Amino acid sequence: MSTELERLAARLQDFARVRDWEQFHTPKNLAMALAGEVGELVAEFQWLTPEESQSPDAETLGRVRSELADVTAYLVRLADLLDIDLVEAANSKLDENERRYDPDLYRGSARKAPPLPS
Amino acid sequence: MSTELERLAARLQDFARVRDWEQFHTPKNLAMALAGEVGELVAEFQWLTPEESQSPDAETLGRVRSELADVTAYLVRLADLLDIDLVEAANSKLDENERRYDPDLYRGSARKAPPLPS
Amino acid sequence: MSTELERLAARLQDFARVRDWEQFHTPKNLAMALAGEVGELVAEFQWLTPEESQSPDAETLGRVRSELADVTAYLVRLADLLDIDLVEAANSKLDENERRYDPDLYRGSARKAPPLPS
Amino acid sequence: MSTELERLAARLQDFARVRDWEQFHTPKNLAMALAGEVGELVAEFQWLTPEESQSPDAETLGRVRSELADVTAYLVRLADLLDIDLVEAANSKLDENERRYDPDLYRGSARKAPPLPS
Repeated sequence: MSTELERLAARLQDFARVRDWEQFHTPKNLAMALAGEVGELVAEFQWLTPEESQSPDAETLGRVRSELADVTAYLVRLADLLDIDLVEAANSKLDENERRYDPDLYRGSARKAPPLPS
Repeated sequence: MSTELERLAARLQDFARVRDWEQFHTPKNLAMALAGEVGELVAEFQWLTPEESQSPDAETLGRVRSELADVTAYLVRLADLLDIDLVEAANSKLDENERRYDPDLYRGSARKAPPLPS
Repeated sequence: MSTELERLAARLQDFARVRDWEQFHTPKNLAMALAGEVGELVAEFQWLTPEESQSPDAETLGRVRSELADVTAYLVRLADLLDIDLVEAANSKLDENERRYDPDLYRGSARKAPPLPS
Repeated sequence: MSTELERLAARLQDFARVRDWEQFHTPKNLAMALAGEVGELVAEFQWLTPEESQSPDAETLGRVRSELADVTAYLVRLADLLDIDLVEAANSKLDENERRYDPDLYRGSARKAPPLPS
């Protein structure tokens, strides 16, 4: 049984293959496409206060949803090509960050922890 | 039954709440954090040729996996705060792009299609 | 008489030539390097409020200065390769924006103006 | 006698003041605006090969010039608000990189040097 991200990755594969776009989909190019879409996402919030960004108007929210869709698509496609499981990678990183950021030491603080000893 | 992304979003919520970091996690700030991580991802590929980027060495691949983990975490956290379903949004966009990019017209071409009439 | 940006561009040319790095400095790669550095810059401000970002502490300001140096270097190098005069381009764009954003219509407003008729 | 960047900074200041946009121009917001414009720049090159990016067609080059203008404007405005001299900062960084990247050791190599001892 495949997950929803695996099904999305398969659909993105088909989409590219049918259009003979696999030639464009190298990790380098997809990382650039991802950066382009994240740039559009950031631009949606650039003049809003942090508080305003919590409840964007309907039009802004629609554009943000559309940008998040593009970001997700390029991210899933890139991870698929490099054979990286995004959810597994995020969960491993979270395991690490739970050790790295002791709640008592970092409560309410935005400062960065030193890397864990490897 | 929740999906793997819902479980990741819940875990990220807990991680922030326990550290009293919810105050930092506005959509504006999370979009910036996402841009920062995507910047680190792009930097991994900047001097590689598109071909080289297809088979990065083990060390580079490890760093790329770590950057993809961070990108995924901020993306899922941001979508959760705005109550946007990333997979649903990506699938809707793909429906739209299947209509927008006719395979016969756009085969092997990287040019951009005009927006669909709304 | 050359300007300070022309002198910086010439110095960056030499720096690359002496190290045989010109092979890496294509516009595509330099745009990626620029995105990577801007990602690091954005990360410096991600958890600060807009107000806090106006007077960063000395350590943050030092890192911001260093990121701005990197952004400037890649921007000037990229423009040099494409034979684009950055100051002239910025001034043309400002001419255009002065027509596009009538002060009476856009005073205190962050909304985007429609493109000028061409 | 002021430099061309100082004159551009002064013009950008006036442009913002006349429209009462200084309220939006915090370093945090300007860093986001810069990231948005760099995203658009990267998008222009995403599907080109590194070689193709060296001689973009006239239409692409026109859009690239326009994006570079926007990047320059936000960069100069941000540096002005933080009282950072971009050219001086870039030259200091270049001094440092000349020591950090010994031509004999790094000739033709894209690997990263360790930071200099401080």
